[in-house]
Amino acid sequence: MTVVLYDLCGAEGRRFSPYCWRARMALAHKGLDVDVRPTRFTEIASICDGERKTLPTIEDHGRTITDSWEIARYLEEAYPDRPSLFGDAAVGTTFFVQSWANTVLHPGLIGLVLHDIWENLSEPDRDYFRESREKRFGRTLEAVQEGREDRVEAFRASLTPLRTTLAAQPFVAGAAPAYADYIVFGAFQWVRVMSPFRVLADDDPIRAWFQRCLDLHGGVARDVPTFY
Amino acid sequence: MTVVLYDLCGAEGRRFSPYCWRARMALAHKGLDVDVRPTRFTEIASICDGERKTLPTIEDHGRTITDSWEIARYLEEAYPDRPSLFGDAAVGTTFFVQSWANTVLHPGLIGLVLHDIWENLSEPDRDYFRESREKRFGRTLEAVQEGREDRVEAFRASLTPLRTTLAAQPFVAGAAPAYADYIVFGAFQWVRVMSPFRVLADDDPIRAWFQRCLDLHGGVARDVPTFY
Repeated sequence: MTVVLYDLCGAEGRRFSPYCWRARMALAHKGLDVDVRPTRFTEIASICDGERKTLPTIEDHGRTITDSWEIARYLEEAYPDRPSLFGDAAVGTTFFVQSWANTVLHPGLIGLVLHDIWENLSEPDRDYFRESREKRFGRTLEAVQEGREDRVEAFRASLTPLRTTLAAQPFVAGAAPAYADYIVFGAFQWVRVMSPFRVLADDDPIRAWFQRCLDLHGGVARDVPTFY
Repeated sequence: MTVVLYDLCGAEGRRFSPYCWRARMALAHKGLDVDVRPTRFTEIASICDGERKTLPTIEDHGRTITDSWEIARYLEEAYPDRPSLFGDAAVGTTFFVQSWANTVLHPGLIGLVLHDIWENLSEPDRDYFRESREKRFGRTLEAVQEGREDRVEAFRASLTPLRTTLAAQPFVAGAAPAYADYIVFGAFQWVRVMSPFRVLADDDPIRAWFQRCLDLHGGVARDVPTFY
């Protein structure tokens, strides 16, 4: 059986859509025969049932499926005996979550609370912390944190990938919590323990996820001194 | 058997380290008994074998392990019969990769090549594309793309999570390619098909990964018209 893929097409047969490439590679990964049909934007309304607004769209066994994520999920379910699109990826993609946390989330938070962290260290650690961090940042702890009210909106905007994920599923790892959640949780717990500054807006949906994490494992992360 | 966790500690018993929270939650996820030992920065040199530079550090069955990622990997291997830290997370964390691609990678790329895309559409699609995209962006296609030479460095900096991931493993999904790779691949293939503008620096390690993706599945993504 051949899967039909309606593939967005530019001039001279150029296949450019990033979403169609996701589907094209997913079909190749599954080793399925594909009938690729180049389709212009202005032709989409005339394919299949006439109800399609976007590509990629596939036809398989009498079913019509639109949207690259829906297609990937469909292929995984319809062809479980072919190579998995997700199966072996859990550790690797969790590592991507960690790379994002370490290089976007953590630096963003540090700029908002670095001096507060120093203030809440025990006396013997304060000199070490000030010296090592001021060397790393090339500025005083006070200077790094200064103006945070003006910078917090940009920080919140940098959380869009996390917010988008949690709008679609209850945990970073999907339906249930896993290590990917603990990576991101650790960052928000860190600032909650050491600073009264509110890094998230009151209506940020990330807060509901954070509360779900606090409920995990007998509330192990609730039973500690925090600022809020 | 109880696992010993050396946990970074501030004043008044505050447990703040985001990396220690990753380990603490991972241990709780596995349902292991934990002996948590609060440790100051200036005490780290005196724990275990005296060779430890950072926390979290754990001791388990005579082994000493430092670094939250190493600890997570160790726990997964040492306690395979306990709930998995990664096992069910593949789809969810791939969705996080997609959220990042859709909200960081794609908008960044569009700002660099939007007018080039229009130029490489077939004639019947050009009016539709210009009208819909200029409405979406509130500017002309030319204005969106203008000044890209000045903005490309900021775009490249936004790829740090991807670059960090690929410095540690050959594919976004880990040792082998999976749908997470195709999500990111689609974005770079998109601009390569539609624009001569080089979005990556010549020495960017992301390029080697992209070439590995082009080699996949019989080179299916090589056999198309592109600009480079």
